[in-house]
Amino acid sequence: MGDQQSPEEKFKLITRNLQEVLGEERLKEILKERELKVYWGTATTGKPHVAYFVPMSKIADFLKAGCEVTILFADLHAYLDNMKAPWELLELRVQYYEQVIKAMLESIGVPLDKLKFVKGTDYQLSREYTLDVYRLSSMVTEHDAKKAGAEVVKQVEHPLLSGLLYPGLQALDEEYLKVDAQFGGVDQRKIFTLAEKYLPSLGYTKRIHMMNPMVPGLTGGKMSSSEEESKIDLLDKNQEVKKKLKKAFCEPGNVENNGVLSFVKHVLFPLHSEFIIKRDPKWGGDKVYTDYEEVERDFAAEQIHPGDLKASVELALNKLLDPIRKKFETPELKKLTASAYPEPSKNKGGAKGNPKQTADEEEVIPSRLDIRVEKIDMRGIESQAMLLCASIEEEPRKVEPLDPPEGSAPGDRVYVEGYESGKPDDELKPKKKVFEKLQVDLKISDEFVAQWKEQNLMTKLGQITCKTLKGGNIC
Amino acid sequence: MGDQQSPEEKFKLITRNLQEVLGEERLKEILKERELKVYWGTATTGKPHVAYFVPMSKIADFLKAGCEVTILFADLHAYLDNMKAPWELLELRVQYYEQVIKAMLESIGVPLDKLKFVKGTDYQLSREYTLDVYRLSSMVTEHDAKKAGAEVVKQVEHPLLSGLLYPGLQALDEEYLKVDAQFGGVDQRKIFTLAEKYLPSLGYTKRIHMMNPMVPGLTGGKMSSSEEESKIDLLDKNQEVKKKLKKAFCEPGNVENNGVLSFVKHVLFPLHSEFIIKRDPKWGGDKVYTDYEEVERDFAAEQIHPGDLKASVELALNKLLDPIRKKFETPELKKLTASAYPEPSKNKGGAKGNPKQTADEEEVIPSRLDIRVEKIDMRGIESQAMLLCASIEEEPRKVEPLDPPEGSAPGDRVYVEGYESGKPDDELKPKKKVFEKLQVDLKISDEFVAQWKEQNLMTKLGQITCKTLKGGNIC
Repeated sequence: MGDQQSPEEKFKLITRNLQEVLGEERLKEILKERELKVYWGTATTGKPHVAYFVPMSKIADFLKAGCEVTILFADLHAYLDNMKAPWELLELRVQYYEQVIKAMLESIGVPLDKLKFVKGTDYQLSREYTLDVYRLSSMVTEHDAKKAGAEVVKQVEHPLLSGLLYPGLQALDEEYLKVDAQFGGVDQRKIFTLAEKYLPSLGYTKRIHMMNPMVPGLTGGKMSSSEEESKIDLLDKNQEVKKKLKKAFCEPGNVENNGVLSFVKHVLFPLHSEFIIKRDPKWGGDKVYTDYEEVERDFAAEQIHPGDLKASVELALNKLLDPIRKKFETPELKKLTASAYPEPSKNKGGAKGNPKQTADEEEVIPSRLDIRVEKIDMRGIESQAMLLCASIEEEPRKVEPLDPPEGSAPGDRVYVEGYESGKPDDELKPKKKVFEKLQVDLKISDEFVAQWKEQNLMTKLGQITCKTLKGGNIC
Repeated sequence: MGDQQSPEEKFKLITRNLQEVLGEERLKEILKERELKVYWGTATTGKPHVAYFVPMSKIADFLKAGCEVTILFADLHAYLDNMKAPWELLELRVQYYEQVIKAMLESIGVPLDKLKFVKGTDYQLSREYTLDVYRLSSMVTEHDAKKAGAEVVKQVEHPLLSGLLYPGLQALDEEYLKVDAQFGGVDQRKIFTLAEKYLPSLGYTKRIHMMNPMVPGLTGGKMSSSEEESKIDLLDKNQEVKKKLKKAFCEPGNVENNGVLSFVKHVLFPLHSEFIIKRDPKWGGDKVYTDYEEVERDFAAEQIHPGDLKASVELALNKLLDPIRKKFETPELKKLTASAYPEPSKNKGGAKGNPKQTADEEEVIPSRLDIRVEKIDMRGIESQAMLLCASIEEEPRKVEPLDPPEGSAPGDRVYVEGYESGKPDDELKPKKKVFEKLQVDLKISDEFVAQWKEQNLMTKLGQITCKTLKGGNIC
């Protein structure tokens, strides 16, 4: 397909609609000599929804321009993101991602012969790669790693070490996937510049980086899979698509943060080079647009009504979804979908059936503990109960028992705010294990209040406190 | 050997002279049932010297108490510490460490049948271990990792990511070496408590931790292998031992930071349970001590003269070194020593002989570059020269050419302070590579001065500066 195009035509197709390209000259040089090798990575954490059509339309451009495209399924990242999900489930998700992405690209109508899927764990746990991770961490400063992840890694009060490692891994992927270029959202920019800075220090080639603009989600909110309710799933039925689109933010005349317009711009136009506004004859009838700017202008001038825009997008979107939904009607793919994304209720049932085995995998929530206020008896009688204390590890080390609220009586239950209900575990052994897991997040706040994940520890009478050891651990 | 001892006797021998034990109760429980498995790790970076007798006397205690002792040679750490040293050299060093440590323990007279040597790279690059490293970094906060390494990882202005990883690796080693306990200096304490905190979260057992006090070096300074001149090597001849001991800090009556006294306390007494002060009859003749406290008391009271103390330690030390030196007289071990620690001059000769191949491995120092002041011609003539600019990566991105000192003329050479001499490379290609490697450490200081590793970039007329981009990179 790329064969009939000149290097200049390929360059234009590869870079159209991108917000930024780092290494344009190298890109042109390669296109003069051979097809470009490019990779796009996605963590197989959630479930791909319609927003995936944005990178897919760009990947369609790459394939149309003859590129060899590698899609990396970052299953290791997905595993680390939620270590409660077992590998078997993650493997099923990788399969689902592959099937659904193929279906999307088939629906768009691009050739798949130059498309390759790779799983992160296929090489990211190898000796060579691991050694390179260590080599890289012996060159990259904490500061640079932090800066690189600033826009992509969740910014929390107590950031995890893993967040500092991910940018380096993403840089190494370029070398291990043997590509010329990496494609991603412009939110990846700092990771890309880290890669450009450090790969040469490891003796590897500096890669080209191609960045899509950040596109608002079709149904409002961010382009993440977390707010499940509002996202349009690729397998949603027509009725659901209509319902969700109805709720999408799309103010008359307002073209800012308008996910519906963005979808027209970044998905529908690149695919078809035209877009039809379906409209009742009494409002002027259908109108065919061949230029996105014109759609935006007409919408801003309130020549296009939000209802008509949504209805037209709904029609175009359903045309894209039809072949995907159809493909997923086969028994194999139905089974894959069901097992890769089991209903939450079924999951719980399974765990209940075998409570002993699951102390590790089950959700560890504070209500599983039965913490009570007790009077401490200092005569040194051994007891099965645990005494909760605050401690400071720095010298001079200090330990101090926690104080229940004024007026507490022995037996008053201690709970974490937000976890008042929930039955504690019956046996002591799993409870100890549960406590060890919860303990990591137990801390004394700057206001001397005992907290779990920044939620106060309480009894019915008020907060559990500690006299002096602010910032201390609880043990 | 441990068979005739009661669990209480073993416990006493295992813990004597330690500064702290975490998990004493578990230690006692294990000793009631079976022999203890303990590990001690050392990075194979430098060359073991007499200070290694301090941990070795403790390891001798472990072996005498019937423990199964694993010595871990952290060759991965050694590699990352100095990535210029090739693996072949590191492998020879591991062999040297093993031979010399065996010789030390033989010289002390302990049985070696329960001693095992393991190399870090034997398992630290495996799939399972690597996955655990990632799992751990998804639980450990940056803050905890930093705190854990505070006393062991070199504290520098721009700390490297690797320093945050090491404490976690050391925790995992306990699990992968299948030991009950880890032994180390008390400077490891925060790493040990990190291990105790997080191994249970990974589903692994919390280990026992045994800590030696920090012992001042025999010849003054710290117990590190860096100040090579003052350290007594295990293969030093009698004459060198005498010369180095002569320089050791050992003030009459002063028992603080007295490395010579410490050596008596932590090495000679544990080994022989007595120590003889050799003295001229006119000063009271020889005196046999069976209690270290008595030695210290007499020294404080100036009943023992520093010269006599040193001479007596010299005698005892030479008795320890004799069998080691003898063992290393065989052609095999002579060859091993020479190849594991080649003379620096020989090394340079080799590099000179083959300058093209070594751009990667050779020392990358700024004097290899030939940076000159030039007048910039804005008419866009392409040139082989590189223009040095400062740049800020944050938005809005800015680039600014660097300014030479007032009055500079085209052709003035730019150098890094401290690297004024040194011949630049001849060819452009290696120079570019050299520049890429140096670039990582090029920065604009807060005083707007261009720097490499915090050393100013200069010409004969003064500093290279930049007008506005403080903190910027140089490219």
